[in-house]
Amino acid sequence: MTSLTALALVCSLKKSETPSSSELLARQVLDELAEHGCAGDAIRVADHPVAFGVSTDEGHGDAWPTIREKVLAADIVVIATPIWMGQPSSVCKMVLERLDAEIGETDEQGRMSTYGKVGAIAVVGNEDGAHHVTAQVAQALTDVGFTLPPNAVTYWVGEAMHGTDYRDLAETPEKTAGTTRTLAANTTHLARLLRDAEYPPA
Amino acid sequence: MTSLTALALVCSLKKSETPSSSELLARQVLDELAEHGCAGDAIRVADHPVAFGVSTDEGHGDAWPTIREKVLAADIVVIATPIWMGQPSSVCKMVLERLDAEIGETDEQGRMSTYGKVGAIAVVGNEDGAHHVTAQVAQALTDVGFTLPPNAVTYWVGEAMHGTDYRDLAETPEKTAGTTRTLAANTTHLARLLRDAEYPPA
Amino acid sequence: MTSLTALALVCSLKKSETPSSSELLARQVLDELAEHGCAGDAIRVADHPVAFGVSTDEGHGDAWPTIREKVLAADIVVIATPIWMGQPSSVCKMVLERLDAEIGETDEQGRMSTYGKVGAIAVVGNEDGAHHVTAQVAQALTDVGFTLPPNAVTYWVGEAMHGTDYRDLAETPEKTAGTTRTLAANTTHLARLLRDAEYPPA
Amino acid sequence: MTSLTALALVCSLKKSETPSSSELLARQVLDELAEHGCAGDAIRVADHPVAFGVSTDEGHGDAWPTIREKVLAADIVVIATPIWMGQPSSVCKMVLERLDAEIGETDEQGRMSTYGKVGAIAVVGNEDGAHHVTAQVAQALTDVGFTLPPNAVTYWVGEAMHGTDYRDLAETPEKTAGTTRTLAANTTHLARLLRDAEYPPA
Repeated sequence: MTSLTALALVCSLKKSETPSSSELLARQVLDELAEHGCAGDAIRVADHPVAFGVSTDEGHGDAWPTIREKVLAADIVVIATPIWMGQPSSVCKMVLERLDAEIGETDEQGRMSTYGKVGAIAVVGNEDGAHHVTAQVAQALTDVGFTLPPNAVTYWVGEAMHGTDYRDLAETPEKTAGTTRTLAANTTHLARLLRDAEYPPA
Repeated sequence: MTSLTALALVCSLKKSETPSSSELLARQVLDELAEHGCAGDAIRVADHPVAFGVSTDEGHGDAWPTIREKVLAADIVVIATPIWMGQPSSVCKMVLERLDAEIGETDEQGRMSTYGKVGAIAVVGNEDGAHHVTAQVAQALTDVGFTLPPNAVTYWVGEAMHGTDYRDLAETPEKTAGTTRTLAANTTHLARLLRDAEYPPA
Repeated sequence: MTSLTALALVCSLKKSETPSSSELLARQVLDELAEHGCAGDAIRVADHPVAFGVSTDEGHGDAWPTIREKVLAADIVVIATPIWMGQPSSVCKMVLERLDAEIGETDEQGRMSTYGKVGAIAVVGNEDGAHHVTAQVAQALTDVGFTLPPNAVTYWVGEAMHGTDYRDLAETPEKTAGTTRTLAANTTHLARLLRDAEYPPA
Repeated sequence: MTSLTALALVCSLKKSETPSSSELLARQVLDELAEHGCAGDAIRVADHPVAFGVSTDEGHGDAWPTIREKVLAADIVVIATPIWMGQPSSVCKMVLERLDAEIGETDEQGRMSTYGKVGAIAVVGNEDGAHHVTAQVAQALTDVGFTLPPNAVTYWVGEAMHGTDYRDLAETPEKTAGTTRTLAANTTHLARLLRDAEYPPA
């Protein structure tokens, strides 16, 4: 079994000193990926001075180039984001904008540096928004070169207008846990296929 | 107090013979509007042979012209829709496409036939999607001439991946009921202002 | 080279008697797929009495079961839709709702009937909306079991508020043509990989 | 005629030293608002150290409280954003998240500090995305207390996959200019109505 690596980009608005539901869900995803021979790492994006922009390196102390190296080294990239106002977080949008630079980073045969990598999505909020966040992130990941297996998404939200955080639940809801397991099985299967058979020249 | 009228377009995929959570929520909205001197009516769109299209009348037995007359007679139009796959129903999209024709229906001063009317939105699903449905419907209503007050939306959804229907809840959740009351207060306030002061020529 | 088949579901609001830009783009996609050993067919959905609903068969003359057989026989499914109000057409939403039934159609190991199939998206409008339509369709296809390669989308839209139809352009814009070629190369590559290596049990 | 004030929050990813198409469109909106007796100001948000968060003041040098004072002093707030990947910019999302705090900032009768203010939207990109950006921003503005008149949006985008910037066009396209004029007429009309007749208690 080919060994794989995964990177989770945790897009909480807060730094690591504050507990984060999206980080918790990201770590649950990494745990399930480990069951499939995939070693993972998580980055709390807000810990690092990532610049606003759409290039690979915005200069002036921009932390993105270091994160980008880890993205390019991973077989599976997990975008983990909280929901605010039914939408992905601004930190998540900042990450997607930086990934947009990969459209210009192609090999001599026109393939992006991200071709062959598999995307996954983890979304969490007090209430409502997981499907729309998935839609925005899935569209962006497809645009910038990632492949998406079926059910590459795990999520949890509470009932309408409720305020409970995922990390404060007494236990992980079985539906979310099962969805996380499916995500791990499908993304690792697809990543191994693509490791052995790269996309054709453009 | 100026008397007002409201029309709720209920966009369930099913005809009236099947109970509908979106119809229930629409009727709760109409009840609250009645408290503010606004008489209302609901149409279950799927009961009628509305044609796909983007004109005011697609011919061949198209039921839209009759519904459109009621839209044009109302001060407040409520779009009530279920959520499927985190998105508005196809019936809701069909209704919005028919309303798109109003962009071409302007008076001699360039104002659409819908100018002065107030929009409201009621969304219901087993889980997840109310904010995104609101976004799509709000954008469309603004495009086709409606004015939207703050909090012109009421909704209910359950916890992630749960299957309970709104109409099967033991009682209406207080948060949704309160939101419905705010919707009614704000839409009637705004509709009265606009009745007395139409938008200027384009 | 494994021979493949593709099905394009053309979601114009109009029947075949009216020319359709989304059908034109769908046929261009099928032509490019043919270059990669993939035989294709297109269905103009509005020609058939597809019922509103979320089951595999709504009864009463519902045309979906026949279309569904073709979906289940295809390796690649292309959703081709016009843009109305910046959003997918109501016919497209109706199709996605019917595909939603596949979530319940699993084998004894929990895999949907659609697992192993590859999705593709073709979007066309006078102006504005292709990315958002892509987002909604990509999310829905991922939800119901399809795999999406990078750049599985081709599209054309004109400048803001312009009214030219894709089918009335003097020639196919090179950017759209190139994007269609990439779509064909990537979807056929991925479909062949998945034909030989199905997803693991859930 | 009641004198009004407007504030444009320009959500370019770049600081003022870099020319911005969204700032250009925002200033065109302010010029048209001035024709209706509304004095305006624009803030390039990226010039200021606004913190990620969902409170009115995140501390530690957060620039939002100063911007927020100007928001609370304005009758009309214009969200001006570029499009990246068919979506609002991360800076725009950061602004909307900060405005989300107003849901908790209510008077003794339950009305948000933003009630009575009118929202407007200006969107610009090389290609595709204006309707979806409008949808996300309109939903967020409605959620946090703003009222939206019809056609409260002006935008420009180029043909699919083209790279021209709005600020590099030889002249302002007449369709965009006309839309900007309508935006100004409708937002000022509505702002004057609401200045004289506040929303009822919740």
